Formats: sequence, C-alpha cells, structure tokens
Amino acid sequence: MTLPQTIAVIGGSGALGGGIAARLALAGLCVVIGSRTAERAEAAAEALRRETGCARVRGCANCDAAATGDLVIVAVPFASQDETLRAIAPNVAGKIVIDTTVPLLPPKVARVQLPREGSAAARAAAALGPDVRLVTAFHNVSAQKLRSGGPVGCDVLVFGDDTDARSSAVVLIEALGLRALHGGPLANSAAAEAMTSVLIAVNRRYGVAEGAGIRLTGIPEAVA
Amino acid sequence: MTLPQTIAVIGGSGALGGGIAARLALAGLCVVIGSRTAERAEAAAEALRRETGCARVRGCANCDAAATGDLVIVAVPFASQDETLRAIAPNVAGKIVIDTTVPLLPPKVARVQLPREGSAAARAAAALGPDVRLVTAFHNVSAQKLRSGGPVGCDVLVFGDDTDARSSAVVLIEALGLRALHGGPLANSAAAEAMTSVLIAVNRRYGVAEGAGIRLTGIPEAVA
Repeated sequence: MTLPQTIAVIGGSGALGGGIAARLALAGLCVVIGSRTAERAEAAAEALRRETGCARVRGCANCDAAATGDLVIVAVPFASQDETLRAIAPNVAGKIVIDTTVPLLPPKVARVQLPREGSAAARAAAALGPDVRLVTAFHNVSAQKLRSGGPVGCDVLVFGDDTDARSSAVVLIEALGLRALHGGPLANSAAAEAMTSVLIAVNRRYGVAEGAGIRLTGIPEAVA
Repeated sequence: MTLPQTIAVIGGSGALGGGIAARLALAGLCVVIGSRTAERAEAAAEALRRETGCARVRGCANCDAAATGDLVIVAVPFASQDETLRAIAPNVAGKIVIDTTVPLLPPKVARVQLPREGSAAARAAAALGPDVRLVTAFHNVSAQKLRSGGPVGCDVLVFGDDTDARSSAVVLIEALGLRALHGGPLANSAAAEAMTSVLIAVNRRYGVAEGAGIRLTGIPEAVA
C-alpha cells in the first residue's frame, strides 16, 4: 500500500493538528497545513519547517488545503467540526478523510458528553456526505507527544465503515512510528471519543502532566 | 479503609460474575454468589469452593444474596440488568453496588450500541434509585483471566458520582491484585462500556484468544 503523496491537515495550526503535521513532516511526507486564514496556516508551516528541518511543509486556507491533499486529516475543536467539514466537503469527494474530533464540551471536558447522534464520527459522516471515505483516529494521543517526535507510548485506534480506507489510515499512522489498530466500524469511534474525557479526568486525578494514553494489551506483537 | 465483610455477586454463576467471585474468594473474602435460583447459585458456589479451596463461598437466590452482602457486585447480561436491579433495589439501600453491565446487543456485540440513556450506568442509576451508592467497574476485564487468578495485564476503570464509594471500590479491586483507576463520574462509564465492543472487534480482527484489555499509559507507578 503506497502512502498518499500530499496530506492536508485541516486545523493544522492547532495543538493536535500541529502534532500530527510534525509527525508527517518527520516521516518525509509532503504536508499542507490548513487554517482559517492563509496567513495563520503559513505561519504554522514556517514554524514547523524550522522545528523539523523539513522543507516540504506549506500552509494555506482550509478549503485550499483540502483541495490539495490526496488524503485529508481534520483536527479542529468540536464546536467547529460541523462548519469546517461542510465547508471542505466539496473538495474531498472520493478522498480518505481522517477526522480526529472529540466531543469535548467546555467547561466539563473531563465528563463524557457524547452528542445526540452518538459520536463526533456520526456528525462527521452527516456533514461530509456519502462520497467521502471517512475514517476517525487520533482521539487519545497527546498533541505534545506527537509534536515531540518521540515515542507516544500508546495506541491509535482507527475506526471506519470503509475497510480499505481504514487500512490505508492504519498504514499511514504506522509510518509515523505509532501503533495503529483497527477498532471496527465508525460507530465504535464513540468509545475512543468518550475515553478522551476519561483520560482528562485521570490526568487531573493522578497529576499526569504529559497526558495519559491507552494501550491495548494482549495483542500479538507481530501486528504492532 | 477496611474491606467489606461479605460481598454478594449477583449473577455470580455467569462467566464474569464467576471470575470476580473467584478473585474475591482467593483474596480471603467472604462471598455470596447470587443466581436466579438458589440451586444454580449453590452449584456455582460448590464449584468455586473446590476450584479455589476457599470455604467461605456460598450461594443463594439473587435477592437473598443482595440482602446478605455488605457490598454488592452485579454481573448480569444487559438484557437482564434492569429487571435484576429493580428486584434487588429494596435490599441494597445505603450499600455500595458495583455494576459491571456492558450494553452488548447481540448479535452485533462488536459494534458500540450505547443505550438511549447514554450508558448502562445511567440505566442502573434509574433502576436502583438515589439511595444506592452506585459505582461501575470491570467492563474491560476478561472473565477467563479473572477466573484464572493470574495477572490480568490490564486496568480496571472505576466510575461513580459518590467519590467515597468509588474510593472503596478502588481499594477492594486493588485487594484482588488488579490495578484500579478512578475514571471520573458515572457518566464516564460510557467510555469503558463502549470500549468493550471495540475490544471484541479487536479480538476478532487480531485473533486474540485470551481477550484484549486496556491499560492506561503515563500513570505514575506509585498509584499502581
């Protein structure tokens, strides 16, 4: 399975998007950072080029980034998810979109508050429409650890009804040095989305500064 | 914090209830196995006495077990949860009840299907009423590994709005040789409940015969 040539990160000027973009750049992939404005995107791209020493990072407005990417990763706050996905939908038809949205509703972010539709994944599917090959992932990985480029010490669960798209996402995420595992259909995304609030509760309770993660036990090492 | 003197396991003749009862017996605690009939309960208790060599295990009908236990653990299928909890409610007022129910809806048990109320925990709270000190736990632990008495290799996340009750449950579960972690309020139970379907999907996909589990990473060892 070949990796996509150019990957867009919508919301790439944010913490999680920036962390993912850094990993992509360090893996030698061509990255287009999307942000609300081209200026913010280009500033984030410039910071990332300096930090990683990778020249193949540029920035542009979200819709242009979505149009340019062969595969599109979306990392925006829950409150912006619907609007952002509807805006980029015309530019991602037929493409694999990896949505990372977690339904955190401030101020109670340590409390599970899944949306009426069941998951942020279900909301993404509704916003993007049936022509998009939707996958979800990266719900439980610390942005900070992603950005550092070092080991994250946890797994990335990957969900999707399109199993080929899901497999492509698993291959891509493993190319970033992370262990990615098939978590099942899109409906199962609710588990990882909800787990993020549990991890925030755990971070507070146990004083985990770098962010707790989850690792699945009992998986044969051969698939790691 | 002292451990409860007698612990009832409602549904203790089932796989998960039997596994928990075995751990309790091996930890030297006094166990009352509850089942639909006193006969089934006593048969399960007899099997457990032989298997563990612990004499302090007995069996009786669910409601009698609930009345006898100082702390009550409920391990029944989702389809029986509401009926069972309503039946024992009068016998558990003021007590800590640890509900283990996961909303698995056969035949699609590898698909997250959280109930309309948000979680099995929310359904338990409604069935038991406000006088019960409800905690939920044991959603992601293999019954087989519990029963074996050996290391389970995963964590037990514990949820509850009554933080003292939740702390008591954590202490009890750690006394069974497991790492128990505070996962936050009862609403957060949805995350662990949903994760069970993900683990079933993972078991199928990766051929994990003994059952995958989850372990939180980044937690200081001192709390383990």
